[in-house]
Amino acid sequence: MIYFDNAATTYPKPDIVYCTMDNFYRNYGFSAGRGQYPQTVQVSKVITDTREKLKKLFNCLPHQEVVFTSSATEAINIILQGIDWSKIKNVYITHFEHNAVLRVLHQIKNININYIKTEKEVKNNKVSLSFDLENIKYQFQDNKPDLVVMTHASNVCGLVVPIEEIASLAKEYDAYVVVDCAQTAGLLNINFNKLRADHIIFAGHKTLYGPLGIAGFTVSNKSNLKPLMYGGTGVDSANMELPIEIPQKFEVGSQNTYAIAGLNASLDWIDNIGRVNIENKEKKLFYDMLSVFEQYPNITVFSSASKDKQLGILSCTFEDYQSGSIGQVLSQNNIAVRTGLHCAPEAHKFMGTSPGGTVRFSLGYFNDNNDIIKLNNIIEQICYS
Amino acid sequence: MIYFDNAATTYPKPDIVYCTMDNFYRNYGFSAGRGQYPQTVQVSKVITDTREKLKKLFNCLPHQEVVFTSSATEAINIILQGIDWSKIKNVYITHFEHNAVLRVLHQIKNININYIKTEKEVKNNKVSLSFDLENIKYQFQDNKPDLVVMTHASNVCGLVVPIEEIASLAKEYDAYVVVDCAQTAGLLNINFNKLRADHIIFAGHKTLYGPLGIAGFTVSNKSNLKPLMYGGTGVDSANMELPIEIPQKFEVGSQNTYAIAGLNASLDWIDNIGRVNIENKEKKLFYDMLSVFEQYPNITVFSSASKDKQLGILSCTFEDYQSGSIGQVLSQNNIAVRTGLHCAPEAHKFMGTSPGGTVRFSLGYFNDNNDIIKLNNIIEQICYS
Repeated sequence: MIYFDNAATTYPKPDIVYCTMDNFYRNYGFSAGRGQYPQTVQVSKVITDTREKLKKLFNCLPHQEVVFTSSATEAINIILQGIDWSKIKNVYITHFEHNAVLRVLHQIKNININYIKTEKEVKNNKVSLSFDLENIKYQFQDNKPDLVVMTHASNVCGLVVPIEEIASLAKEYDAYVVVDCAQTAGLLNINFNKLRADHIIFAGHKTLYGPLGIAGFTVSNKSNLKPLMYGGTGVDSANMELPIEIPQKFEVGSQNTYAIAGLNASLDWIDNIGRVNIENKEKKLFYDMLSVFEQYPNITVFSSASKDKQLGILSCTFEDYQSGSIGQVLSQNNIAVRTGLHCAPEAHKFMGTSPGGTVRFSLGYFNDNNDIIKLNNIIEQICYS
Repeated sequence: MIYFDNAATTYPKPDIVYCTMDNFYRNYGFSAGRGQYPQTVQVSKVITDTREKLKKLFNCLPHQEVVFTSSATEAINIILQGIDWSKIKNVYITHFEHNAVLRVLHQIKNININYIKTEKEVKNNKVSLSFDLENIKYQFQDNKPDLVVMTHASNVCGLVVPIEEIASLAKEYDAYVVVDCAQTAGLLNINFNKLRADHIIFAGHKTLYGPLGIAGFTVSNKSNLKPLMYGGTGVDSANMELPIEIPQKFEVGSQNTYAIAGLNASLDWIDNIGRVNIENKEKKLFYDMLSVFEQYPNITVFSSASKDKQLGILSCTFEDYQSGSIGQVLSQNNIAVRTGLHCAPEAHKFMGTSPGGTVRFSLGYFNDNNDIIKLNNIIEQICYS
């Protein structure tokens, strides 16, 4: 199988991730830090070490802490259900938010949701997307932002959002800033020395090449974000209030230790290969793939107007074919893609691809040139059949 | 190491659980059901199959569905934060609830929390615990229950709660009934033909011998329980409301597929050995262990008054020693236990073991007689030193 569904979850994982998880669970499958035997201390060390590696990867500032959750969706829910909404009226989001953001915001009463202005240029069979920072500056001036929630990159078309610039514009108005890095953590540079955000969210099983079941967010250790869930933390058990310390306040129940160990291994793997090298490999493959599609006038590609604002995710539509049908043909030819709305309906509305959606080809480090050559053959068959 | 911390998490897991997880994640590490390629269908099949096996294990009725969560704590939070509190005033809990229950209830305003009457008999160095159903019947008559939340068995001392009888008494008043089976699912018989409960909660990584990261609860497919989290479900993406279908409504974000596959394998393992055989093995080991402790007049054991209401969890205190010190000595001798309050502070208040707590020895299927013999030697050294 040729796997072009890496935006859903990267596959395969580096071999060291599978090996570490299996080995760790067989040998250290204990509850972290809640017993007194030395093995639990070892488990706690791996958790702390993984937190430190993530802080280093994200260039966290000294006051920032990493909280582990079971999924990026949980992290987004903790943040968006936990912030103090009494002072928030004007919410800005991009057109490219995932339902994990859209559906939580939909539950919040008495807020205005505004879309950050996005440029769309249609030329021949190419739809180019971009942000004009001057436009966004005027937009914020006209209608001051209280909260900005933005994905770092679209899971639909790979468009990278200029998060540092938009966050800086938003912070002129003291807005609260949340960045969803589910598609970028470990792949793009994230640097809190430049990014004026209150939280970033990461998913272990996507561009961090770790396992499912582990994700998280960054938070200031002085944050008064409310917890979403209550439960045991293994410390101060007689107190009916959760610990006020962060991350403990948000990490109730047993920690998913072997998933954290797997993430630890994938962080080492990224460090060994070099984040930039992974980014460059994906970018090269993206443009090789793009040149395949650009040959066919009946295929419309949706992507970033700028080469340095593009992830290895390509969305396209085929004239006279429904996206789902193309997905089926590709599947019959052993090519895995994802078609439809990709849990990001607003992106498709903006791109003009609702309700049928697009065919999405999402790349990962383990794709190679042969995959693109084979894809080319199949696309040729589809377009000339 | 001799592992007596199975109430925290069972260890080791059956070898087939480790093998299945590794094999599944290497070969089927895709997003469930969200692509169109056949491999994702296979992943979805394993999820459905695991749900069916759990329904069979719990003797679920046709209208009952199994929802997967990342932890039992999440399951408890979904239920207790999601029920309609407008009609609930009188809440009954046992003295043995975990902080996952206590701390959620502590957040709910304008309710009365009542403790289900529990009998405690102190005789020599033995504290025997039990429930008198007549007393509970009168208690409910005096102060009618609106909600009953009860653990199936204490994670502190292994006392089994007569959940079927108490649920029946509570249902006389149409009370909502929630049973926390974190310590019993897969080990004790749970049968919805007799148990009049609205929900049971299970943890994959405890008595189900599956991995961390997977747990869940049962719910009627007509339930109007509110969801705790919002996000993508892979279906009906253009709709800003979550699907109303259960379990989809409660399962947002990517499913932890390899953990579910691991649980599937452990369910087969339980089925092969026979749940009753696991229960009997643990019970025999418990009474062998009890006879070790009963030799020493300076050890006080807290357990059930009745042989058929006791899990393989033994809590005790040592005269003139703090529980933590005993834990350290045991750890130095390569015996893993857990001391303190075990995230269940009310149990210790009731037993009279607050704030120091007890030393807890919790058994699993992989303990054997040799463990008890070695334990005997160490206990002898401690008590005669």
